[in-house]
Amino acid sequence: MRTPKKVLSLLEHEDKFLIVTHINPDGDAIGSALALSLALESMGKETFVYDRDPVPRFYEFLPGHNRFRPDLKNILPVDPMLILLDCNSPARAAIDEYDFRYSLVIDHHETETDFGDTRWIKQEAAATGLMIYFLIKSLGVTMTKDMAVNLYTAISVDTGTFRYSNTTAEVLRVSADLIESGAEPNRIADYLYETWDMKRFHLFVATLNTLEIKDDMAMIHITKEMFRKTGTRAEDTENFANFPRVIRSVKISALLRELGNGEWKVSLRSRGDVNVARVAELFGGGGHRNAAGYKMRAELGSVKEALRKASKKFS
Amino acid sequence: MRTPKKVLSLLEHEDKFLIVTHINPDGDAIGSALALSLALESMGKETFVYDRDPVPRFYEFLPGHNRFRPDLKNILPVDPMLILLDCNSPARAAIDEYDFRYSLVIDHHETETDFGDTRWIKQEAAATGLMIYFLIKSLGVTMTKDMAVNLYTAISVDTGTFRYSNTTAEVLRVSADLIESGAEPNRIADYLYETWDMKRFHLFVATLNTLEIKDDMAMIHITKEMFRKTGTRAEDTENFANFPRVIRSVKISALLRELGNGEWKVSLRSRGDVNVARVAELFGGGGHRNAAGYKMRAELGSVKEALRKASKKFS
Repeated sequence: MRTPKKVLSLLEHEDKFLIVTHINPDGDAIGSALALSLALESMGKETFVYDRDPVPRFYEFLPGHNRFRPDLKNILPVDPMLILLDCNSPARAAIDEYDFRYSLVIDHHETETDFGDTRWIKQEAAATGLMIYFLIKSLGVTMTKDMAVNLYTAISVDTGTFRYSNTTAEVLRVSADLIESGAEPNRIADYLYETWDMKRFHLFVATLNTLEIKDDMAMIHITKEMFRKTGTRAEDTENFANFPRVIRSVKISALLRELGNGEWKVSLRSRGDVNVARVAELFGGGGHRNAAGYKMRAELGSVKEALRKASKKFS
Repeated sequence: MRTPKKVLSLLEHEDKFLIVTHINPDGDAIGSALALSLALESMGKETFVYDRDPVPRFYEFLPGHNRFRPDLKNILPVDPMLILLDCNSPARAAIDEYDFRYSLVIDHHETETDFGDTRWIKQEAAATGLMIYFLIKSLGVTMTKDMAVNLYTAISVDTGTFRYSNTTAEVLRVSADLIESGAEPNRIADYLYETWDMKRFHLFVATLNTLEIKDDMAMIHITKEMFRKTGTRAEDTENFANFPRVIRSVKISALLRELGNGEWKVSLRSRGDVNVARVAELFGGGGHRNAAGYKMRAELGSVKEALRKASKKFS
């Protein structure tokens, strides 16, 4: 992968950068932002890192995670150049009400708007972290252990630690380099997958107990009462929607989570060619081919029934 | 990694090979044996592949899995050279009652005996599949898709698909090469982790419901009654022992499985430096630092109590 010259020249010539990523940031967003911040500072630049939402506890092992600041008020007067990472519309980062002197977008998602004075968007990249790796190499910056841990985590999260179909030979070669720069695969995997607390485990078992399968669709659900009984909250359900896919016959897996006021959040996951974004769109939601979601206000039974009917058209 | 010249010269000069691996073969044993058989046959050699036990259904996606033969009677008169793979004692492969003209051992486990006319044993190798990769390259054989799928699977199984501490930069670079030769990471991960049947899922949920945690030890158990109710058997419990490790506080995870006649099989898994082989040895069992086991004849409560007392000495 080649970094565009224009991107390199911007980073070399500017002095102050505001790095912003999307709301509800995930490992790719956080890891990419931190690695880029660390790299630019090693070049003597000043950087500010902003996200509307806090770094989830889950990702507090990432070196430099406390660089994230929760407000822009003190940063904007410095008039930095904006770098929008891992998304390509200001609305996704909740910064659409601000103006910036100059903006650079680095992302691997489908384009939503034409925002950005300079745009480097590679949809075929497995992770934004992969793009930042090549960027740092092209800048001639030494890859430190802290940068490597952030980028290895970013790539791990977006490839399911090398289990999704976006795992290419290039992804593994870059990750091999990051190991040589100090990333420890076992330590990172432990942080990502083995730091549940007991409450989360109890919620997981309770959720699996709700499993219903019809045809090739699995449904599990979590009521507010289940959250209350186990002392858990929405962020504890990370990856639960995926689990029923371990069953061979399951092509679509759905997690229904009660939001209150009769509303449910439905998270859909699918295998291979089954496109759940199409299903979610029927209910006013959206997403990607294998991961999508929507909200619906109805009784649990009706939410399930509507989903079953809709999904039959697409599987 | 370099393949010893002696090993290459043996494979180049001999014509008939008997490839044997350990009883209860796992993905590394099966994948390594099949890839080596395919490579030698592409050089015009004759190969026979033997294991006392059948290839688990689980691994029937591996190209060439039907090369495994269940008996040696028709093979021995051909007088082939023995290649013992992924173990280094004839007893581990249940071939200790036979004599062979010449034997070559290729393995990455601790040495148990000095068996073998030529021995290539690299304990620091993450998988035997990694050694076979370098062997095939050194022989100048073209890596076919079928060989690549077998070796990628072998390496995946022994590194937890790149999550264990034996995941080195070399492991990822070799795996990148195997992708370029046709291995599909997503398809292989699906086969390894997402082919449960419903019965297995029900057993899993029932097993998680038995979880007990004291200090840093988690215990789950499966009675014969649970197997009967769900229509499952021992091979359906693969990896169950690992699962409680998702909980942050758990350093040792134990699965107790009822064998009948008052006997229990105890499988221990641990994190990092906690050595469960030492615990298993106290009860006449054994294993590796992070994975070990033993059998005990007693009531379930007594088995648990004895294990708890023993493990306190080592965690």
